[in-house]
Amino acid sequence: MNEKYLDELLQALEEGRLSREVVLAELKDLPYRDIGIAHLDTHRGLRDRLGEVVFAAGKTTSQLETILRHLLTMPGNILVTRLDDRQAAALQPLFPQFTYDEVGRCLVCRRREIEPAGRGTVLVVTAGTSDLPVAREAVITLELLGQPVELLADVGVAGLHRLLAYREQLWRAAVIVAVAGMEGALPSVIAGLVDRPVIAVPTSVGYGAAFGGVAALLGMLNTCASGVGVVNIDNGFGAACLAALINRAD
Amino acid sequence: MNEKYLDELLQALEEGRLSREVVLAELKDLPYRDIGIAHLDTHRGLRDRLGEVVFAAGKTTSQLETILRHLLTMPGNILVTRLDDRQAAALQPLFPQFTYDEVGRCLVCRRREIEPAGRGTVLVVTAGTSDLPVAREAVITLELLGQPVELLADVGVAGLHRLLAYREQLWRAAVIVAVAGMEGALPSVIAGLVDRPVIAVPTSVGYGAAFGGVAALLGMLNTCASGVGVVNIDNGFGAACLAALINRAD
Amino acid sequence: MNEKYLDELLQALEEGRLSREVVLAELKDLPYRDIGIAHLDTHRGLRDRLGEVVFAAGKTTSQLETILRHLLTMPGNILVTRLDDRQAAALQPLFPQFTYDEVGRCLVCRRREIEPAGRGTVLVVTAGTSDLPVAREAVITLELLGQPVELLADVGVAGLHRLLAYREQLWRAAVIVAVAGMEGALPSVIAGLVDRPVIAVPTSVGYGAAFGGVAALLGMLNTCASGVGVVNIDNGFGAACLAALINRAD
Amino acid sequence: MNEKYLDELLQALEEGRLSREVVLAELKDLPYRDIGIAHLDTHRGLRDRLGEVVFAAGKTTSQLETILRHLLTMPGNILVTRLDDRQAAALQPLFPQFTYDEVGRCLVCRRREIEPAGRGTVLVVTAGTSDLPVAREAVITLELLGQPVELLADVGVAGLHRLLAYREQLWRAAVIVAVAGMEGALPSVIAGLVDRPVIAVPTSVGYGAAFGGVAALLGMLNTCASGVGVVNIDNGFGAACLAALINRAD
Amino acid sequence: MNEKYLDELLQALEEGRLSREVVLAELKDLPYRDIGIAHLDTHRGLRDRLGEVVFAAGKTTSQLETILRHLLTMPGNILVTRLDDRQAAALQPLFPQFTYDEVGRCLVCRRREIEPAGRGTVLVVTAGTSDLPVAREAVITLELLGQPVELLADVGVAGLHRLLAYREQLWRAAVIVAVAGMEGALPSVIAGLVDRPVIAVPTSVGYGAAFGGVAALLGMLNTCASGVGVVNIDNGFGAACLAALINRAD
Amino acid sequence: MNEKYLDELLQALEEGRLSREVVLAELKDLPYRDIGIAHLDTHRGLRDRLGEVVFAAGKTTSQLETILRHLLTMPGNILVTRLDDRQAAALQPLFPQFTYDEVGRCLVCRRREIEPAGRGTVLVVTAGTSDLPVAREAVITLELLGQPVELLADVGVAGLHRLLAYREQLWRAAVIVAVAGMEGALPSVIAGLVDRPVIAVPTSVGYGAAFGGVAALLGMLNTCASGVGVVNIDNGFGAACLAALINRAD
Amino acid sequence: MNEKYLDELLQALEEGRLSREVVLAELKDLPYRDIGIAHLDTHRGLRDRLGEVVFAAGKTTSQLETILRHLLTMPGNILVTRLDDRQAAALQPLFPQFTYDEVGRCLVCRRREIEPAGRGTVLVVTAGTSDLPVAREAVITLELLGQPVELLADVGVAGLHRLLAYREQLWRAAVIVAVAGMEGALPSVIAGLVDRPVIAVPTSVGYGAAFGGVAALLGMLNTCASGVGVVNIDNGFGAACLAALINRAD
Amino acid sequence: MNEKYLDELLQALEEGRLSREVVLAELKDLPYRDIGIAHLDTHRGLRDRLGEVVFAAGKTTSQLETILRHLLTMPGNILVTRLDDRQAAALQPLFPQFTYDEVGRCLVCRRREIEPAGRGTVLVVTAGTSDLPVAREAVITLELLGQPVELLADVGVAGLHRLLAYREQLWRAAVIVAVAGMEGALPSVIAGLVDRPVIAVPTSVGYGAAFGGVAALLGMLNTCASGVGVVNIDNGFGAACLAALINRAD
Repeated sequence: MNEKYLDELLQALEEGRLSREVVLAELKDLPYRDIGIAHLDTHRGLRDRLGEVVFAAGKTTSQLETILRHLLTMPGNILVTRLDDRQAAALQPLFPQFTYDEVGRCLVCRRREIEPAGRGTVLVVTAGTSDLPVAREAVITLELLGQPVELLADVGVAGLHRLLAYREQLWRAAVIVAVAGMEGALPSVIAGLVDRPVIAVPTSVGYGAAFGGVAALLGMLNTCASGVGVVNIDNGFGAACLAALINRAD
Repeated sequence: MNEKYLDELLQALEEGRLSREVVLAELKDLPYRDIGIAHLDTHRGLRDRLGEVVFAAGKTTSQLETILRHLLTMPGNILVTRLDDRQAAALQPLFPQFTYDEVGRCLVCRRREIEPAGRGTVLVVTAGTSDLPVAREAVITLELLGQPVELLADVGVAGLHRLLAYREQLWRAAVIVAVAGMEGALPSVIAGLVDRPVIAVPTSVGYGAAFGGVAALLGMLNTCASGVGVVNIDNGFGAACLAALINRAD
Repeated sequence: MNEKYLDELLQALEEGRLSREVVLAELKDLPYRDIGIAHLDTHRGLRDRLGEVVFAAGKTTSQLETILRHLLTMPGNILVTRLDDRQAAALQPLFPQFTYDEVGRCLVCRRREIEPAGRGTVLVVTAGTSDLPVAREAVITLELLGQPVELLADVGVAGLHRLLAYREQLWRAAVIVAVAGMEGALPSVIAGLVDRPVIAVPTSVGYGAAFGGVAALLGMLNTCASGVGVVNIDNGFGAACLAALINRAD
Repeated sequence: MNEKYLDELLQALEEGRLSREVVLAELKDLPYRDIGIAHLDTHRGLRDRLGEVVFAAGKTTSQLETILRHLLTMPGNILVTRLDDRQAAALQPLFPQFTYDEVGRCLVCRRREIEPAGRGTVLVVTAGTSDLPVAREAVITLELLGQPVELLADVGVAGLHRLLAYREQLWRAAVIVAVAGMEGALPSVIAGLVDRPVIAVPTSVGYGAAFGGVAALLGMLNTCASGVGVVNIDNGFGAACLAALINRAD
Repeated sequence: MNEKYLDELLQALEEGRLSREVVLAELKDLPYRDIGIAHLDTHRGLRDRLGEVVFAAGKTTSQLETILRHLLTMPGNILVTRLDDRQAAALQPLFPQFTYDEVGRCLVCRRREIEPAGRGTVLVVTAGTSDLPVAREAVITLELLGQPVELLADVGVAGLHRLLAYREQLWRAAVIVAVAGMEGALPSVIAGLVDRPVIAVPTSVGYGAAFGGVAALLGMLNTCASGVGVVNIDNGFGAACLAALINRAD
Repeated sequence: MNEKYLDELLQALEEGRLSREVVLAELKDLPYRDIGIAHLDTHRGLRDRLGEVVFAAGKTTSQLETILRHLLTMPGNILVTRLDDRQAAALQPLFPQFTYDEVGRCLVCRRREIEPAGRGTVLVVTAGTSDLPVAREAVITLELLGQPVELLADVGVAGLHRLLAYREQLWRAAVIVAVAGMEGALPSVIAGLVDRPVIAVPTSVGYGAAFGGVAALLGMLNTCASGVGVVNIDNGFGAACLAALINRAD
Repeated sequence: MNEKYLDELLQALEEGRLSREVVLAELKDLPYRDIGIAHLDTHRGLRDRLGEVVFAAGKTTSQLETILRHLLTMPGNILVTRLDDRQAAALQPLFPQFTYDEVGRCLVCRRREIEPAGRGTVLVVTAGTSDLPVAREAVITLELLGQPVELLADVGVAGLHRLLAYREQLWRAAVIVAVAGMEGALPSVIAGLVDRPVIAVPTSVGYGAAFGGVAALLGMLNTCASGVGVVNIDNGFGAACLAALINRAD
Repeated sequence: MNEKYLDELLQALEEGRLSREVVLAELKDLPYRDIGIAHLDTHRGLRDRLGEVVFAAGKTTSQLETILRHLLTMPGNILVTRLDDRQAAALQPLFPQFTYDEVGRCLVCRRREIEPAGRGTVLVVTAGTSDLPVAREAVITLELLGQPVELLADVGVAGLHRLLAYREQLWRAAVIVAVAGMEGALPSVIAGLVDRPVIAVPTSVGYGAAFGGVAALLGMLNTCASGVGVVNIDNGFGAACLAALINRAD
């Protein structure tokens, strides 16, 4: 499209319909604006699939309503993450076309067919049941990105047999998203079992010296296993985006 | 092999050569020892390619000499990382079969052909020239892992034109390893430009409130771009392993 | 049981009822699933006594209700820890078979006789009255674990005579759980008085530079006395489990 | 004025209307009180323009009411910053002469003509829409200080093209106030594009390892670009004062 | 002995050999000095076995020489911990009656028979070979305390099969000392496997975000397994003392 | 009193009214219990004056009511500190004999004459008006301790003339309590002006990088002036106790 | 120049010397490469004056030699900052054309006339003599940038009279760079005295809870005075660049 | 004196010897310069006694030599603190008139009689022998300040009987300086025993989670005892200055 516009400009110059001065002025600014958009747009690939994403935390209900009404005038899927109970209760009656996931605290509006986009399966694993909200956010995001997803919950390292019972499922996965709070040892153990990329998501689950997820974060950054990349505390969405880029079919 | 051993055990039982009690006792312990080793070995895939890796930091020269002499009695390539000047000066005359990379502070002994193992190219990018040791460690590790690697140095965000001049190279890469100290903004900017996985490596480059890489680490974990996974401060080796797993051909 | 299953398999092979191939396939996976469970289960000993434990913090009242209704369909005692006032008020009318401890913020359902399981007495000591919730959580847990418990409250180091007045009780104990906030000096002083293991529990009692228990935690980790093991901030439950393992009769 | 008062005192002494003792007593304290005010008063220049500023955070509604009633008995403009919803709702009906800015959470009473006081334009730039409250606080303060202001929102570094599209506006500004949370990379990138002073304002926008603005703060302090001065987290008011001092016309 | 002295005093009073005033004066101070010593001495039990312990870090060679010459005039065993290479090299020729342990960096002088004092075996386990100095310090201390000790090295969680291969040895131990740096996950995994007390020792092994052992320390304090007590970073000596108190025979 | 009891015991022995065995048993325990109380009681001097002090933070209203009803059955003054609005509103109607100080958030019951107990005047100085609650807590405590007190508010270092105007009052004081939040520079400046002890009280006033008073605390600990002792953040009560001990008349 | 090149391209197209396809290809890449360089170069203005700047910390002597030899083949002034004693001793004999400033630890090669570039005077003020190295680095940088500079040393807040004695000099300055370690209160006090921008530079001077400059940094960020911008710890160079941009004549 | 000068000025005006303009000009500047100097000098009282104090840490030997030669040309005592071995070895032969204290790492030159200046005795107490350097620095400073000093070493809280044996000495002291590293509990315990001001000095003694004295610092700030003021880590000199101000005779 932008290339087409460039082509038209040059054709007009060639045919004398536009003066050199006019074309020169246009060209000087153009690349930053239009070609720029083509080249520089943030993860166009991801965004094309995901549609629009709204981070609800810290927004008022009325701000969210305005944003969603605006987005509904445009095509594409919509994902709202990090809703609290109050926000969810207020928005659900207003937007019946959205589905609300209570565990993952996400509102999703699917208006477009999602094409399969993954080479293999992304396996989301959690250490405990309290890590499920973060895991669900990842699962929902991955589904919108067309990724085949599986979820394996509550297989933390304090009961190794629970994890080892699923070693086959771990081995089959193309990418593993390991979600854990407290001491955050799950990604280390998993990365020692498989030879696929492991995305480690520390969660704010825990108390005292867990420091809101810092203990888990440090544990994951200092893993003695190789093949682990870490994202921010509770960032299930970010882990899903990275997993989708790693696992993309093309 | 292990399956073969199991088969032999069962055959002996079937043929009456071993009593049920003996086989029972053997089987109870076996899986953890032998099948266990087969299944659970840490990143067997990576290690098969890499050969042995020795982390030199904190080891005495004589400890390193002992370890290397031992490793040389076995086949496979050898990588020694994080050597300081004194260690390197002492070991080089003793081990002429190793090549020393001064920038990356690694000793490498290549005794086995490295098979190409990557789907695309891994691009290692640094914000400044001081980040080069960490980047070189990543490059050397990637080469031993059979990955096609390119290195792009000193394209930090304070001079965006330097980075933008290489946007084509950025777009061509299958995986990008972005190495940066100080404010650590490079991975954010790159992840905003491309739609491939970006592995962010904070470095201890900086002073004062850089806190030995903590500022860069926090910057990377809090990136507003998606598709970024972070490893430990100065962990070029770990970033390379993760990149290789993401980019592996099979 | 698992051994019995193994025995049956082998017998079937011996008697020709199962082919070697079938038994081989079964055996390869088995140990991780069944023998695994037998060997690897988390503190089976503790859990057998304790029954089920539910950590209420961060769970909604309806989630708790669901969990408790489920647990009540199974045998054994049930302990719910870290309830807030709202949760407690909502759950008490629904579950009359539970006893609520206001200080320790625990719900307990005793449906099974608790056998005595300790060699000596576990003495729980607090520095101040504000440390009592954590101490009560420890006491309740210890009682469910069949441990003889004594509680000694408000004997902090700013009034040494209070502590010294109980030196005989301190000397009689087999294990001491020392609970303290603020500067957390109590375990140091006690460990200097007795020659029994001291489990130090920092509490979040304090303000300003207490940093939610960090000052007490650091004080306990840096104790100049020997024989002190530290658990997480406010972790009365964890201290009790450790004390019970140390003091177990068998 | 003070000098005039001094002159009058001396004249009275010279003319015998006041005794030396009286004048001596007056003079001993005077300089600290009156000349003092002239010399030592906090940024008299700024305050003369700004009028009075009230920091609402942590004050009760009735305390704020008392303060505002008192200030209204005196001449000059009044700025109230950091109001929360409850405070704003309570005060607005009571003080119809104030205008409330919902985004910037400021109440402003303009009773005096504001003279233009800037050499050039101050450009306030934000990385995301969530940074707007801090940016608005800066804009409102700058307007009261007689500074020509422009606002450019949501041009963070993850989508460089958005920022680059405004490079001309960036180049035209005399001072730039760059407001960003999360990784806080915006000031670095801007300072690399322009050769004017950049005032960096970290915001508490973000979660997890953003640590309430600390990640952004560290990023800004460690900028690899030169020409950046940093203020406290969320301190839009302080950034505006500094920008006004830099850009003042005289 | 002290009781005997008290008895003599009272007898003298009864028999009129001492006046009431004299006895009164003596009694007022006595308990703190003499009975006090008997009751209050720091872990007399431990010290009786261990003999004297000298912490070498931060002491000059000549200070150490003076201390050791003094201790040699008294009976009992002597343990010097945390020697650096320079200290060890200087002291060894001067004190041939001491044995130096290079890995554990301890000098030991055994002059007294050590009586067995443990109920079971203390198992010291390390995650990596770099944790050995801390583990050796624990082993040497335990031996001096008359405890049966076993050492199991380099069985960290990134290669679970290594750890699982020793599950029987883990199950046999009465107390386990788990030594680990980096992410410090080893104690969590072990405590999930056994039902004996686990003493967790974080080590300063690691780099970057390991923060000199803080990551491991936090991991251990936040363990999701129960039955874990934590000591200070690198405190092998302290872990051994605690283990000995837990495992003492009487 | 205790000495009298001892005397009686000895007299009874001397006169044969008690056997040696009985006296011996009594004496062994006595000193820790009774003489102990006499010697070891926490700041008996302070407590005798202050009466009882109740720290309200973290206590429920009903807990406070119970405690106060109990204390009212005993003689002496009563001070309740750190009340929040809800607690104060609930307790005031129940306890009309208490006076409530809204700024200092203290309830005071004066039932005993307070004797003057200070050598000089204690001057409490604050940097800003937001520091007043902490300063009032100090003033109220000092008054109960019989100390002559003066209060000087809002003389922070950003407007030096305000502080310098009171240099005479500063010079007259025997002890100065300097209360400041934000950068906490007030004690440094005051200690440079006077040659009397300065007690520095950091407050949690501030935002962002004030970290709840940590910035002020660090500023005070690092003062370049000499003669400054620091107490915990917001600890007006503790500063008053220290000031009273320094300034005590005897 | 770039515009000229664009003009030539278009003219060639207009005249049929280049095909539309060729021009199209050229145009698509051009702006980022060439116009880009023109527009985006880092502080071209500053760099034009300063010439090249080399940060010596962390570089080997031989690396520095190579860099300097290279820079000497190009025109312009050269500034080397953060040299340690060893580096300085090695480089001075090799590069006689450089002047070494022992206090500021800078090597300077002036080969080009420096044009005056400031509107007013930049005043660099230090709290103590230990802050001089950082202040000298700022002074040297400012001189190379053509700024009129004055230096005022050792006027910290613990002896206010020293600072107040220079109030006239403070009032005359256009920009003030305030350099201080320990509690870092100097910029607050100065910003309360003048109405010009104050650039605060925390230094790593101090010990204990100074935490290498963190206490000073926090003090400066939390200043209660307005008009203060903060740079990184010990960053005299950065403060000078910011001062020069603020004070630039055009 | 200054008042006299003011009086003369006014008299001259009254008598017509000086014009109003001249007096006006003089008056405007005067108070800040001359009265200022008289009033504002830093702890003139302390400095008069102490003479000059030089903080050696971070200064080169030649800088120290220059400073000392300069100070020797002036009268009064001289104290040099925080010398390292190298500095001490270099300076001792050059300055035979100084006495070197090896433990306290201070050089002292006494050239003036020190008058007794204390009301009571200052007791310096240490928890361990490793705290002695800090304690000696305090003792030496106190002696130069004319304070009666006693030193009581190695009476830490892990062996309470050691401390309690000296309770009489503790009770006799007018001020107590309590020096402790590791968990820093000593000041809490002492302040619970006596009713005199306690100055708490945290030391950097310890390892691991002692964080260079931070654990002890936090412990002291959070003391549950009242009457404790804290100084910076290892700041024996500062504690002595504060003790001297508290204990001064006049």
